[in-house]
Amino acid sequence: MDIVAGIDLGGTDTKFGLVNKKGDLLAYHSIPTDPNIGYQPFFELLGREIEQLMLSIGDGYHLAGVSVGAPSGNQKNGTIDSASNLKWPEKLPIADILNSIFGLPVSVSNDANAAALGEMYYGLGKGVKDLICITLGTGLGCGIISNGSLITGSNGHAGEMGHVIAVENGRQCTCGRLGCLETYVSATGMVRSVLETDPDILQRSLLGNLNRKSLTSKKITSAAMEGDELALEVFDATAKVLGKTLANSVALLNPNLIILTGGLARAGKYLLEPTKRYVNHYLLDMYKGSVEIKTSEMNNKKTAILGAAAFMWLKLENVSQTTFQ
Amino acid sequence: MDIVAGIDLGGTDTKFGLVNKKGDLLAYHSIPTDPNIGYQPFFELLGREIEQLMLSIGDGYHLAGVSVGAPSGNQKNGTIDSASNLKWPEKLPIADILNSIFGLPVSVSNDANAAALGEMYYGLGKGVKDLICITLGTGLGCGIISNGSLITGSNGHAGEMGHVIAVENGRQCTCGRLGCLETYVSATGMVRSVLETDPDILQRSLLGNLNRKSLTSKKITSAAMEGDELALEVFDATAKVLGKTLANSVALLNPNLIILTGGLARAGKYLLEPTKRYVNHYLLDMYKGSVEIKTSEMNNKKTAILGAAAFMWLKLENVSQTTFQ
Repeated sequence: MDIVAGIDLGGTDTKFGLVNKKGDLLAYHSIPTDPNIGYQPFFELLGREIEQLMLSIGDGYHLAGVSVGAPSGNQKNGTIDSASNLKWPEKLPIADILNSIFGLPVSVSNDANAAALGEMYYGLGKGVKDLICITLGTGLGCGIISNGSLITGSNGHAGEMGHVIAVENGRQCTCGRLGCLETYVSATGMVRSVLETDPDILQRSLLGNLNRKSLTSKKITSAAMEGDELALEVFDATAKVLGKTLANSVALLNPNLIILTGGLARAGKYLLEPTKRYVNHYLLDMYKGSVEIKTSEMNNKKTAILGAAAFMWLKLENVSQTTFQ
Repeated sequence: MDIVAGIDLGGTDTKFGLVNKKGDLLAYHSIPTDPNIGYQPFFELLGREIEQLMLSIGDGYHLAGVSVGAPSGNQKNGTIDSASNLKWPEKLPIADILNSIFGLPVSVSNDANAAALGEMYYGLGKGVKDLICITLGTGLGCGIISNGSLITGSNGHAGEMGHVIAVENGRQCTCGRLGCLETYVSATGMVRSVLETDPDILQRSLLGNLNRKSLTSKKITSAAMEGDELALEVFDATAKVLGKTLANSVALLNPNLIILTGGLARAGKYLLEPTKRYVNHYLLDMYKGSVEIKTSEMNNKKTAILGAAAFMWLKLENVSQTTFQ
């Protein structure tokens, strides 16, 4: 039986697994992404690890392709465009490197695009042809599927919703501009929202006792669960900025499904309910009732592996995803 | 030789022409869009007119299809969704009606999508696979092409950039919401900008002598040509709102070309130059230098006919535009 290897290359850990066409994860392992060894030894090690994984599942399987998802993976060029926290060259030709190691077809994707395809193939997006998948973590990523195909854009850089300017003259973003969506709607953005709160209000909150370093979006969620007013307000304010940007994206793309995934999406109803309310508030009448907003039901840790695998299955099936490596 | 009939169904006039595959307009005519006769007699009249046009170009041509572009044309459903100033039913099944008259393949599109395809096939977008086409008239329309295919969305309502909320708590829009792009960036929006000007400033302008009714975007352009400060400021303010929204759209779609077309685009450099400046100002670094902004070089009156024809050629060639009628 044909299977593919899906690799989720992160700054700290590299997770990988063997996936069949139905989306079953047959075997799974992870290794630290060691920034101190060169990329060639690292990927050779990864190759040996995947060989071991193949042995672990026994006979009868044939590895048909290898697919890697990475935060700045470029599916159009087969490169990792800037692995900022790794000491690897810019525009690392990862497709060529993996191809020379495995001698198999290789595909490359960024993590948000992989998540979108993973949802379309194995998750809430089954049978849906027009969807937007938002990954909420340290930053905000986005994968857009239109008429069943991933939108890559002319240089493979479509889907940067995290850098849509959502607030005029808003918060300073790491990109150098002001008011980008991810400065509000992300784990980091929510922590900023708490830290910007009036000290008097902060003191009355469960979050008031935490210092800057120990404040996380998880702790904001816990506080919201206990009914903390400030935490609930921060979720509401986050959802308002997200809701407006999503409503604007619906006007451009007319999807029928928006999926929230990533660590912050695990806040569940605390983020989802106000987001639905604000999307509806900002939505043009014509679209009302035609777009659902849901939080992913996939296991977060494995979404990226399954998404990368979906890319490879698409490639192997030669579906009209002409821009893949 | 195969030719197709392209129809530009407007609220006042219906223009139509015969177009070959190269995009030559072999014959052209127009009739008033009479709101007082029913749609069936109207389209039967149109059918006879197109037959006449076929006779006028002589032998050797074969009409292979009929394609209609209309402001609320829905290419996914083959309907005109709301011809507000015509006394026709909502969701008029125009594809079926024209098919019963001509007995030929029929395609339907909205005018902005037709303009985008017209530009890709016969205009500035030749060879470009990722572009956004903005039509600037009474309102603002938008057609988006990604990887060579038109983005239609799940219900055929993608590309409503005119209703992206560009200014928080901004101007009242006819859609009932506040701050939609087209309340600023359109002929009507520019007139509003002049009328909202401080009376003292307005009095010092060439536009100060005009009453509400005689003020048009054409007159604002003429004043700008004469160096009128207020007119130039209005172009600058319009371009700022447009530039920011376009920069945000680039972050989602990563096109390499944006085309401005429609009546207001004829203001040429007065709109184009400040728009380029503001897009660059608001653009994420990664995209700088990778997206061109141009005004259409096609004859405005014929763009919609050629665009509708392009839809039909696509359909006849069975290109992967699976959503066409």
